[in-house]
Order: sequence, then structure tokens, then C-alpha cells
Amino acid sequence: MTRRILLDCDPGHDDAIAILLAAGDPGVEIAAITTVSGNQSIEKVTRNALAIAELAGLDPTVPIARGAHRPLLHEVEYAPEYHGESGLDGPQLPEPTRALDSRHGVQLIIDTIMGSEPGEITLVPTGALTNVALAVRLEQRIVERVREVIFMGGGVHVGNHGPFSEFNIAIDPEAAQIVIGAGWPITMVGLDATHQAVVTPEIRAKLDAVGTRSSAFVGGLLDFYGAAYAGHGFAHPPVHDPVTVAMVIDPTLVRAVKAPLAVELTGTLTKGMTVADLREPAPESTPTSVALGVENERFWDLVVAALSRLP
Amino acid sequence: MTRRILLDCDPGHDDAIAILLAAGDPGVEIAAITTVSGNQSIEKVTRNALAIAELAGLDPTVPIARGAHRPLLHEVEYAPEYHGESGLDGPQLPEPTRALDSRHGVQLIIDTIMGSEPGEITLVPTGALTNVALAVRLEQRIVERVREVIFMGGGVHVGNHGPFSEFNIAIDPEAAQIVIGAGWPITMVGLDATHQAVVTPEIRAKLDAVGTRSSAFVGGLLDFYGAAYAGHGFAHPPVHDPVTVAMVIDPTLVRAVKAPLAVELTGTLTKGMTVADLREPAPESTPTSVALGVENERFWDLVVAALSRLP
Amino acid sequence: MTRRILLDCDPGHDDAIAILLAAGDPGVEIAAITTVSGNQSIEKVTRNALAIAELAGLDPTVPIARGAHRPLLHEVEYAPEYHGESGLDGPQLPEPTRALDSRHGVQLIIDTIMGSEPGEITLVPTGALTNVALAVRLEQRIVERVREVIFMGGGVHVGNHGPFSEFNIAIDPEAAQIVIGAGWPITMVGLDATHQAVVTPEIRAKLDAVGTRSSAFVGGLLDFYGAAYAGHGFAHPPVHDPVTVAMVIDPTLVRAVKAPLAVELTGTLTKGMTVADLREPAPESTPTSVALGVENERFWDLVVAALSRLP
Amino acid sequence: MTRRILLDCDPGHDDAIAILLAAGDPGVEIAAITTVSGNQSIEKVTRNALAIAELAGLDPTVPIARGAHRPLLHEVEYAPEYHGESGLDGPQLPEPTRALDSRHGVQLIIDTIMGSEPGEITLVPTGALTNVALAVRLEQRIVERVREVIFMGGGVHVGNHGPFSEFNIAIDPEAAQIVIGAGWPITMVGLDATHQAVVTPEIRAKLDAVGTRSSAFVGGLLDFYGAAYAGHGFAHPPVHDPVTVAMVIDPTLVRAVKAPLAVELTGTLTKGMTVADLREPAPESTPTSVALGVENERFWDLVVAALSRLP
Repeated sequence: MTRRILLDCDPGHDDAIAILLAAGDPGVEIAAITTVSGNQSIEKVTRNALAIAELAGLDPTVPIARGAHRPLLHEVEYAPEYHGESGLDGPQLPEPTRALDSRHGVQLIIDTIMGSEPGEITLVPTGALTNVALAVRLEQRIVERVREVIFMGGGVHVGNHGPFSEFNIAIDPEAAQIVIGAGWPITMVGLDATHQAVVTPEIRAKLDAVGTRSSAFVGGLLDFYGAAYAGHGFAHPPVHDPVTVAMVIDPTLVRAVKAPLAVELTGTLTKGMTVADLREPAPESTPTSVALGVENERFWDLVVAALSRLP
Repeated sequence: MTRRILLDCDPGHDDAIAILLAAGDPGVEIAAITTVSGNQSIEKVTRNALAIAELAGLDPTVPIARGAHRPLLHEVEYAPEYHGESGLDGPQLPEPTRALDSRHGVQLIIDTIMGSEPGEITLVPTGALTNVALAVRLEQRIVERVREVIFMGGGVHVGNHGPFSEFNIAIDPEAAQIVIGAGWPITMVGLDATHQAVVTPEIRAKLDAVGTRSSAFVGGLLDFYGAAYAGHGFAHPPVHDPVTVAMVIDPTLVRAVKAPLAVELTGTLTKGMTVADLREPAPESTPTSVALGVENERFWDLVVAALSRLP
Repeated sequence: MTRRILLDCDPGHDDAIAILLAAGDPGVEIAAITTVSGNQSIEKVTRNALAIAELAGLDPTVPIARGAHRPLLHEVEYAPEYHGESGLDGPQLPEPTRALDSRHGVQLIIDTIMGSEPGEITLVPTGALTNVALAVRLEQRIVERVREVIFMGGGVHVGNHGPFSEFNIAIDPEAAQIVIGAGWPITMVGLDATHQAVVTPEIRAKLDAVGTRSSAFVGGLLDFYGAAYAGHGFAHPPVHDPVTVAMVIDPTLVRAVKAPLAVELTGTLTKGMTVADLREPAPESTPTSVALGVENERFWDLVVAALSRLP
Repeated sequence: MTRRILLDCDPGHDDAIAILLAAGDPGVEIAAITTVSGNQSIEKVTRNALAIAELAGLDPTVPIARGAHRPLLHEVEYAPEYHGESGLDGPQLPEPTRALDSRHGVQLIIDTIMGSEPGEITLVPTGALTNVALAVRLEQRIVERVREVIFMGGGVHVGNHGPFSEFNIAIDPEAAQIVIGAGWPITMVGLDATHQAVVTPEIRAKLDAVGTRSSAFVGGLLDFYGAAYAGHGFAHPPVHDPVTVAMVIDPTLVRAVKAPLAVELTGTLTKGMTVADLREPAPESTPTSVALGVENERFWDLVVAALSRLP
């Protein structure tokens, strides 16, 4: 059964690969794409989303809308050291021919969920959770109506923005807390898992061997992105965002456990930390889960297969 | 020149009087009314707003829309000890005949401001700042487009929710910070001023002497509200919210000074405090002002005059 | 009846006047003096304390001991903009001939209190509360044994370090909370009161007319100190610390009320604020009081009289 | 070369084993023992320390002093669920015959370090860090004079008091920050390591086989303590405190890395968390280290050998 997903993202090298995976895998169908300020400015990541949709040959009826231009409370913060000035530095981007949806991204999230059957839409945020938080506060009925939320962000035992905070959460922790605490079934695919989703030379070779325009584009992305991560001591770059899409396609790829989860909002050293309580097994009724690992080989097999199906 | 205002409120006894003052004074024109969770649930305060509009004979083309059902991050909190179970305990409420606007209150705020001339709309929030905060984050252009914001909430030297925190701010401090820090000209009409806007026996006599249905209704409100405040040691009840409308009508009623202003979001004893820095005179370019006093006699003269013009 | 006091101080222009007032007034007897890092480094304020004792002709058997060299948790912070590089810039300091007590200031506090009768010693801190906090944690029996604590620091409605924080508290808020929350009878003589203890030209004339070496010295202090405060917009400099000693001598000089009191330790804007709850009258059993005003004329009459009795 | 250690502890089952290990191992010599409120009240843990010294036949000239009766700022908190009402529930305690040193524990820490050669004393705290913090603030020269500090407390990736906070730190986080941030070489032996120092049935058998009064006593301790931990889902009880002593004896037992380390003091969910930054290798000059693992077999070999040498 095909799962319909709404991608809320800030492309971003790994967001781009997440979109391509979703576009090329028969197990998921993209219902809509919304963008959010994060890896770069809302203008840049929105242009990038359109360009990736172009590259993937995404059905032009799939709406793409621009979302929040800044976090709820924190000042705007971008990540040029990992994604460059454009947000997608490296390969040449195709020129988008499609138009943006005229609605605000937050409204598109609400309309997509409320206009679908209950349990139909899976929400897949891979950037700051600003849009989703605003949508939850404007239309609380989406909480009951989505199938589940699987987001990239946070980490239980590891951080990349601070010692224990991850970029997507750290740049808008209040939004993250609104989303994580909303009560819907939600899985955090954080750095514990995504730091295992790495591009080894073997995997890179497989990607290059695909031979499509899309795979060549991904290669260009990984050249820039891998060099950026190498500068931070990573032998192989972790590709965070597509792990969420992969988990929608095949939940067995990701090892996740139920655990109470909340965002630290007042800590001096830990603001933005996603605090999961793993001391004891959580009751089955706990709505929050955290991913602790991913099977890297099988994950990339999905990406390779998707890229083979795309232009 | 008539000033067009958007009232964002949670009626609430003093909100009701604010609406009546705005409806009856020729110096202001109500462009729209939006409601927000606060003194009571969003359902109750919305019904109350419709009933007050009915009582005031408000032009049926003035839209009234339901806004946020809860604060951004804090749990819902109401104030039944001051406003009763209905939010307007005391007098009999007229049955509303008008319909709610179908838009969300946040959307009505955005549409009203963006659909008016630059500098035309003055925003007058008298409840939690949840709606206004959401509007600012969804459509940042409203910040440049309003004339100014005059809100009831906070206090420099006095609190009513905690030692130094006021109810409207304390129940949604993050929203308050978004609104106060947005950069538009904004005046906080807090408890320093509104604790001077009290109903003495002389003022009550003047109100009773008006002899309209509206003044009788206000009398009924003050019976309940005065008793509630008497239970908290107040000889005369302070009527907070209409001071904002009065300030729009006649700014000379209120003594206000420019001062840096922000909301404490992490304090253990002071969360929700509106921290104004009065140590030195603030530069003229400071966008935030705080009211420190009100001329009570002249304030009530405005209310009495307005009630005389209403049904 | 003469009240025996222990002065814990960081001279400091106003600390110096506090010592001189205590030395010259027959109503109090100095049991011991301890110093603490604050207005200047522990070395400087300790030397200053010895010099002032010399100037005042203090009985050489009164022990003076050096205390804490830094706050509990905060980094060291001094106040050279008010007290100069020496901590007592302005007049020429006499050369001390007496020796320091060999004990640590904290130990001297403990020994003085435990070696006196119950209820005999009044503790009068006029600097950061580091020493007193350490003494309370090392020997909790002092809490029961002192008569009371009257300290200069904090403020209910006004600050000088931040909008709502005062220097003595802000530089060691954790120590302040330990002392304020210890359970003993304690009065905060904060800026609400001490900003009324100002040197007007009339008062300065009276001080100059005394004609002793001590009064000339005070004049020299006030020349420097008044100029420093003038640079911060004060027409007349407030002389904070001696108000505590004056209150020991004559409690009717100071208007104080009982109120729950605690220090904000986690606020972003309000860390170090002394939060008093004045919303309702506090029960008589409340151990904490806050001073809200001082009678300036009568206060200075005490100082003038004391200076007349000194060399 | 024998290492001279000062044990600052709150016995406590695992503290007791730490004392016995130190008493029975020829590689260390106990210079002094101080007690601190923690696992139980200061009265109880002090009596327990005397009783263990009795059991171990500790040289009567080794001073034992009672330290802090409560944390710096937090309210007193004990751990009866792990240590029982006595703090050492389980076996029969010997009646102490030796007297307490008359000094406060904090003074004994200062005197021991200042009375020894520079670099002679290793400080080994296994309870809350209240005493050590007070000592650092009263006599800063101890920071330069100790050889190093090896304490049990905290954890990088795991907590037992909160999701990420450990008991010894959580009950006095401000003291912990004072000690961790003092600048001396300090190693945190936290739960990451000590949760590996577990009593398996094989190890229990070895301990029982020793056949001394001391080993029988340890068996009695482990009966109670193991049952307590079993109630919290631990198959084998972790014996935290003696890992510090073992690390003094043989540093190769513990895997430790240098890392920036500080205590979170303001977090709502994370207060008391020991935040280590492991994202990049720390410079060699970093004074703080964290233990991440221990070799369990070799660790217990040391304990067994020590118990064999004791009465």
C-alpha cells in the first residue's frame, strides 16, 4: 500500500536526497511539499525545493508552498558551513518551471491533512519544526487526523549544534516542543540513527553506477557535502533526512523504541536538547518514539533503487 | 479623525467594557474582533464577544472570528475566580443573532491589516497574545503595516498572577515575547496603569445614572467583578482592558514612557514578567513603551459618554 | 542598650561610611569586621577596611578578617566605575597599623556568633553575601543564634546592575539565596530605600561643617562618589550601606514590611533579582522583610553625629 | 608508589566497599575520611563511616570528620530506596570505638591537603560535592596543591535521578559545578563507567569465597543492595563508588577521555546533568576527563584481593 506523505523541508543536501527517495520509491507518494527556514533562507530553500521537484520530474499537480521565514522565538540561523551559500552548493540546479502554490506552507499542511482521509497522511518534517508547530496551533484537528509524524532532528546521546543539541531542534526549540508534545504518534529520527546513515566509498560507487541525471546530481551533492563533513572530522558523511522517508517505506530499517520525549527549553548548556527517558521501558501508550539505529546498507539500497527510477 | 482598531480579546468583564467603549465612542471604529483563549475557554469567550456585539448594536458587517484555543507552549489556564464559569458571570447576556466569520481569528487579523491602508489599523489586544504572535509569524508584513499596537497585559512593578507577572502574559509568555519584540510601535498598558482605573462609588453612581441597557449591563458586570476583586483585597475593582481603547481615543489619558521591554521566559520566580528597563531614559527610536498611570476620572468620563450613546 | 554588630563589607565608599557610623554611634558596638570580594578585589577591600578602622580609631581588639576572594559560582566582578581602582578612590587613606586577624572571615563570623550570647549579635552585611552563605553552610547553628540580619542589597522595584537586579546580589545570587532563605529574621535594605538616602547640598554642608578628620575624609569620598553617580544621571548620590547600620540604631528610620522574599537564580533577564511578594500582607511569622523607604534627614543626622564623635 | 587519598563519602553500600578497597589495597593509603549528606543524613553516614573504619581495622590516627549536613542550595534529599533507613541496611554494623575528628569535614579537607606536599593528595569524593566545593571556596590554594580529583558522580549518556542526571550531582548541582570547574585535574567516574562495574553471580561467588569478616560484610551489603537494584530492573547491581579508588590504584582499569565538562544548572528537564562535549577530541590541556568504561573482571579482582588482606 502506498503511503502518502507531506514533506516539510529546508533543502539542504540531505533534504534533496529525501525528496528524490520519496519521488522515486513506489512505496510512497508525495502529497505536498512545504519549505521552512533552516539550512538556508526561506527564499533559497524554496527555490531549491522547486528545482529538486523539477529534477525528479515530480507530478506538477503536487503543490509546493513556501512556509515560515524564521523560527518562533529564536533569531534566524542558517547552516552555510554544511550546505553552502545556496543551501545546495555543489551541482548545477535545474531551472524550475513550476509555480509555487499560493498558500502559506502552514496552510498547505492544514489543507492537505484536513482534505485527506483520517490516517492517510504521514507528516515527514526534515527541517526546523516551525511550520508544523504553527499548523498544530492553528488547526488542532490535524493531530488526530494524520497517520503519524516521522521527523529528522534531535538526538538522544549526541548533538551537532551543541554537545547534546541538533541543528533542526536547536534553531527552533519551542516549535519542536509543540510538535513533539502534541500527542500524535511521532518518531524522532535523530543523530543516534542518522550518524549511521553514512556514505562509504562502496555506497558512493553504487550511487555513481546508477547513471541517471538524478544520481549524477546526488553525486555532485555528496562531493560538496562530504567535504564539508570531512572538515568536521567525519570519515564518511551522514545523510540524515532521507532516513525518515526510508522509515516510512520500510520501518524495519530503523531501530526505534518508545520513550518519553521532550525538548529542554531553559537549559544554559542544553537548550534544544531532545530529552528521552530510556531508563525504563515506556508503556505502549507512549506517543513518542526515538530511533537509535539504522541499517545502512539496506537504507542505501532504497536510495539507489529510487534514483534508478528517476530521470 | 476616527481611528480604526482591531480588538483581540477574551471577554471577560473588562474586555466587554472595552468593546462597549469602542462601540460607543465616535473617535474609534471597530474594524474587526477576534477572540482568544484566556479568561475562559475559546468557545465561551467567543460566545461572549458575539453577545456583547449584539448588546452594543455593532454593525453586522464587522467580522468577529474565533482565534486560538490555547497558548503556544503553556497549558491552558483560565480565570474563573475573576470572571466566573461563563467568563461574563453576573448580568444576563443577550442572545447573539449574528454569525461568526468563518476565518480563523489569526487569518482575520492578517486579512484586516493587509486589506487596509498602511498605518490604518491599530491593534488592540486585551487578552493573551497568542493570536497576534501567530499572525506575526505567518505574515510578517503586518508588522510594518499597522499603525501601532496598544495591549493590556504585564506590569513593570506589579503582578497579579505571580509577584511580578500578569495573567495575560503569564498564560502565554512566549507569544507575548514574539509580539513585544516584533519591532512595531507597541505600548504595554499594564497593571501599573490599570490598577489606577478603578470603580469608586462615585464612578459607579455615574455609570448607573446613564440609564441605558448597556449601562445596566455594565452595572451587572461590575457587581460580580467588584465582589471578586474585593475578595482579593481591592477596595475598588481595577478595570484593565478599556484603558487600551481609551488610550487610542485620547493618548493624554495615559502616562507612558519609552523603555526597552522584553518578557522573562526562563525565570523560576519571574517567568512571564514583562521586564522594562527604566534606569535611564530610552532613545526616541525605542519601539516599546510602557504605561505607568492613567487619569481615572477622565477615563471613566469616556466610558460614561460611550454608554450613553449605545442602546 | 548597645547593639553588637558584625560588619561584613567590601569598602567601598558607602561601606566606609557605614563603618564610621557604627564606630561613632553609641548605640552600636562593632564586634568584628569581615571583608568580601565585591566593590574591589579582596586584597583591596581588606586593606581599605583596615585603613578605615585606623581612621575611626577603632579599638584594636576588634578583629578584622579577610573573607571570600570570589563569589560561589559567578565569575569575579568589581565596580570600579563607582569606587575607582582602589575601591576607595578620592581621599588619602591612613596607613593601617593594626594586623589582620589570622582567621578566614567565614570562621570569624562563626566564632563571633557562637562565642556570643544567643541573640547578641546582629549581622550587618553590606557587600556580596558570599561569606555569610559559607558560614551558614559550615555552621548552621549561627542561624538560631544571631539576633537578626540586616543587609544592604537587592531591591523590590529597582535595580542598578540590571533592570531589576542590584550589584551585591547580582555578583553572587546563589549566596544571596542561601542567606535570604536561611530562616533567620532578615531585612533587605535594598535600593527602594537606599535610593532615598541621598547627599543633597544641604546635607553635604552639614557634613562639611563637622570639621573632624573623619568628616573631611567622608567629604573626600563623596567628591569622588558623587561625581561617579552624576555620570549615571543621579542628581544626588545615594549612600546605600550605612542605612543598614542606621536601621540597627533606630529602626524607625526605615519603613520595612514583611514579605516573602527569594532570589531569582535562573532568569535570563532577571537573574539576581530579589523577588518580594507584596501582593498581600505577609503573615507575622514571615522571617523576611524588605525596606521600602528611609527618612533621609534623620538618617544623615545620625551620620553627622557619629562623625562628630570620631577623631 | 603508594598514593595518599582523601575519601569524601556518604556511606552508603558502595561507599563502604570503596573504603574497604582503599583500606585493603597496598597501592593506596587513606590520609583522611570526610562525610557528606547524601545517601542518608550526615549523622547516619558519619556513624557508618566510623563503623566501616572499625571493620577495616583502619589506623586510628587516620582522622574521620563530619562534613556538610545539607547541599548548598537544594533541599536535602536522601536515597533510602537503595541504601535503606540506616544508609547501610543489610549486615550488622560493628560498634565504632574511635572518635570523630573535632574539625568540620571541610576544614579537614583543607588541612590535609595544605599539610601535605604539593601533588601528594588525591581527592576521591564519592558523594555529593558539597564539602569539596566549600573547601575550594574557603581555601583556593588546595586547587593547585592536590595531585588530582577522581570523583564518582554524573554520567555522559545516562542518568539515575533524572533521564540524564545522576544522584550525587543532582542533589547538589551547584557544588558539583564549583568542583568540576575549579581548574584542577579532575576525572568524572560516572554512570557510563560504573554501570559496567556489576556484581555478576561469578563475581559474587569470588567475593563469598574470600572468607574474611570484611568479605562476609560485603556479602551482606550486596544482598540488600542487589535486591534494591533488581527492583529497578538491573539484573546485576552496579557498584559505583569503588571504581574511583580502583582508578587511583590502576588507571588502566578505566577508559577515560579528556572532554570539556560542566553541570547544567538551569535546565528544566536536565538540571544536574553533567554535560561533556565529546564531539571533537579535547586539547591535552583540558583539565576535565570523563570515564566511559571499566574492566569489570579486573576491577573486582582488586576488591577481592583487598578484602583478603582485611580482618
